[in-house]
Amino acid sequence: MRTDVNTLGEFGLIDHLTGNFVLQQPSSLKGVGDDAAVIDNGSFCTVVSTDMLVEGIHFDLAYTPLKHLGYKSVVVNLSDIYAMNAFPKQITVSIAISNRYSVEALDELYAGIRAACETYGVDLVGGDTTSSPKGMVISITAIGQGEKDLLTYRNGARVGDLICITGDLGAAYLGLQLLEREKQIWQENPDVQPNLEDQQYAIGRQLKPEARRDLIETFRKIGLKPTSMIDISDGLASEIFHICKQSGVGALIEESGVPIHPDAELLALKFKLDPITCALNGGEDYELLFTIDPNDVEKVRFLPEIYIAGEILDPKDGIKLNTKGGNLHVLKAQGWTHF
Amino acid sequence: MRTDVNTLGEFGLIDHLTGNFVLQQPSSLKGVGDDAAVIDNGSFCTVVSTDMLVEGIHFDLAYTPLKHLGYKSVVVNLSDIYAMNAFPKQITVSIAISNRYSVEALDELYAGIRAACETYGVDLVGGDTTSSPKGMVISITAIGQGEKDLLTYRNGARVGDLICITGDLGAAYLGLQLLEREKQIWQENPDVQPNLEDQQYAIGRQLKPEARRDLIETFRKIGLKPTSMIDISDGLASEIFHICKQSGVGALIEESGVPIHPDAELLALKFKLDPITCALNGGEDYELLFTIDPNDVEKVRFLPEIYIAGEILDPKDGIKLNTKGGNLHVLKAQGWTHF
Repeated sequence: MRTDVNTLGEFGLIDHLTGNFVLQQPSSLKGVGDDAAVIDNGSFCTVVSTDMLVEGIHFDLAYTPLKHLGYKSVVVNLSDIYAMNAFPKQITVSIAISNRYSVEALDELYAGIRAACETYGVDLVGGDTTSSPKGMVISITAIGQGEKDLLTYRNGARVGDLICITGDLGAAYLGLQLLEREKQIWQENPDVQPNLEDQQYAIGRQLKPEARRDLIETFRKIGLKPTSMIDISDGLASEIFHICKQSGVGALIEESGVPIHPDAELLALKFKLDPITCALNGGEDYELLFTIDPNDVEKVRFLPEIYIAGEILDPKDGIKLNTKGGNLHVLKAQGWTHF
Repeated sequence: MRTDVNTLGEFGLIDHLTGNFVLQQPSSLKGVGDDAAVIDNGSFCTVVSTDMLVEGIHFDLAYTPLKHLGYKSVVVNLSDIYAMNAFPKQITVSIAISNRYSVEALDELYAGIRAACETYGVDLVGGDTTSSPKGMVISITAIGQGEKDLLTYRNGARVGDLICITGDLGAAYLGLQLLEREKQIWQENPDVQPNLEDQQYAIGRQLKPEARRDLIETFRKIGLKPTSMIDISDGLASEIFHICKQSGVGALIEESGVPIHPDAELLALKFKLDPITCALNGGEDYELLFTIDPNDVEKVRFLPEIYIAGEILDPKDGIKLNTKGGNLHVLKAQGWTHF
């Protein structure tokens, strides 16, 4: 019997493989299934998240500078810690590389890792460096701290909560489309210089994303604890599905409430793509999606970087998008299937 | 300018890449450079270790059952936590796999991971599952706890301390030689059945190593705190070099004090290898190498699984092996260079 891994999808495969692991340690507060694992340390919790990035799957060195790759590899892990309403403190970095990489190339990668460590105030405390027969694999684990009663999980959204987003969506995906297009043109004719059309915004969102530490700090200042939270790595549709599934609720997203940068809007039209589709299914924006109690709305209403994009509904209402044209669409959790 | 990674070696490369990272978090007690990183949590410490295993470099699925691979992948990480005199509590497991692996194959891998979790009482709390263009990569992070004043580093050995080993060395390496030989024979003629010569011991040491939790528990019971400790993953010579380098001391190893299993001894001779060379440079035994204050010798003298194998010397004496024939050899830290 041979079942192809594609039949389960990424999340189905994780569920399948880890579903029969029983937690034995009293300190294991949260295992597989949120942005990060949570370990009870008494007064506070240690929060752990890990990601593996594979050359040819998650990154393409044809258009990704190694320094940017190092920076982004760290940021995507820190984003998972912030999405728990916690603060990252340490990281470990493991890399496997083939001998086609020089020490100077690795220096570039680690310069990016160091820049991210400095920007976010985290320490590189360990890792592993080994060879691979082909290509590069980067595995980063981020370790953070959070007060136990402030940690924010995916399963806390309640009917009537407001759905909030911390920044514009879709641009990272469109930046990737642009880089892929120019790579293709270059491969067909190496004499043609890349034409990135001054799309710094979209390309910057793709190559050098930032994690929203600023907003987690803001939450502390204004005394806001979201009822649920997740970072937007696979696209808004996929993330709202995670929240709804784990919270046992439905959701209504207002298209007019989903922030899209004007540059992304124009770029989408050039690619003959619907901007809202890019925002819903694009991924890699690393903004935060969170829900708040409606009584907390005054705390966020005048924060320029928080967008109210919908409402949590009864589970029987499903997960729907109310378009600008006033049509109700059932949302599908497209996300990204790598296999 | 292009410097080949081979020119630095594994440890040199790690030093080069991570040497200019400054620790900023007050909780980062120990960064790169020991078996595990140490994070201060007040009354106790969180200890973190990570390893990356790459198909074709660290394991060969031609003779490694996936269940054993899963088990061993966990054990080698737990071994690093025990080597800090701490106890592992949680692990995260990330894997990258090509689509040639079926769900059933992954089930086998995870059955081994689960078996190790159950044996050692650790919880799988997170990870990542993604695809790779070719082959399998496994990255495991182990998270443990230790009392701050009991943690044992590589840098605590003092002149006059006794050097101890927790079990026999060299068999894992010889098991690997046997498996490699049979693979070669099989590749040349697939009709020939493997002849493993009833070498269960050596093959078991290679395919299903165990971490020495039992001895860390014993240390607690008998009130022993080693002055320094490291696990033997790269061979005794490489590990004693790490201890001597970080402690600023020399060492004398007595060949007669290095435990070698009779099966390993015989197998070495069949391969025309010197058994002590296998013990010194073989690696993957996952025993513990530690040093104790000479005043503690009565605590370990009658423990059957602890072998006293030498003494810590003045740094000017270097690192030497006193052979059974009474000759003094200068030891070289051979270890394993993957690049």
